[in-house]
Amino acid sequence: MNVERDGKMCELCTSTGGTALWESPTCRVVRVDDPHYPGFCRVIWTAHVREMTDLDPGERQSMMNLVFAVEKVVRNLFAPDKVNLASLGNMTPHLHWHVIPRWRDDGHFPEPIWGTKQRDGRPRAVVSDDTMRQALRKQLHPEDNQG
Amino acid sequence: MNVERDGKMCELCTSTGGTALWESPTCRVVRVDDPHYPGFCRVIWTAHVREMTDLDPGERQSMMNLVFAVEKVVRNLFAPDKVNLASLGNMTPHLHWHVIPRWRDDGHFPEPIWGTKQRDGRPRAVVSDDTMRQALRKQLHPEDNQG
Repeated sequence: MNVERDGKMCELCTSTGGTALWESPTCRVVRVDDPHYPGFCRVIWTAHVREMTDLDPGERQSMMNLVFAVEKVVRNLFAPDKVNLASLGNMTPHLHWHVIPRWRDDGHFPEPIWGTKQRDGRPRAVVSDDTMRQALRKQLHPEDNQG
Repeated sequence: MNVERDGKMCELCTSTGGTALWESPTCRVVRVDDPHYPGFCRVIWTAHVREMTDLDPGERQSMMNLVFAVEKVVRNLFAPDKVNLASLGNMTPHLHWHVIPRWRDDGHFPEPIWGTKQRDGRPRAVVSDDTMRQALRKQLHPEDNQG
């Protein structure tokens, strides 16, 4: 599964890519450690696949369901002004989605976080990894919380 | 449907947003006129909705199916090195997806197209709007092309 590119191993094949929040055999959700974008998560396909259309339709749907579950959790816990979703992979062509909460006064708004910095951002309210884990589990398995 | 923001009308409520390639009552696909990224398309939800999780699950799935159909067409017609998918909406918070073909020698690679310019890009092979329209129709309705 560790595929070399330009002489380097794929970093999403060889490392988690962030703090693990949730995992299945096909997919994982990790949190990116950035105090300016505190709910920033990545949804990463386990296998080294390049594009969404390299997955079959059912796999695509299951990955997107996970992306949208993360979006819901991020909206609920962080109340951002906007959510940015992106699957780029130019540097690391191993399928992964960025789920990024954005605020009007964050460091790059209204540019994407990869654009020109607009101002000094400020660190945001702290939400623990465990709180995110629990919220994501509840979002993905609401039946576990009934009765 | 024309919603004001900062005193301005939403541009995706008041204009097509590009050259129309395909349309349904809920969604449209338009082509962005950029010779450096010739297959660059946007998939735009008709109603003024902000986030993917403001749609119901069936609506989300139908929009993503359209995004992935566009990705397939772009891969088939333009053979990019990578496809970038993004739903940002910081400037225009009206749900729309960017489907962007990328090449290793394009103007921004490996940065996102919103990042720092890396080099002069070069205009790419011309594919007509009609060719894209036909390919997208075929992708979305393969049964129309059977005997």
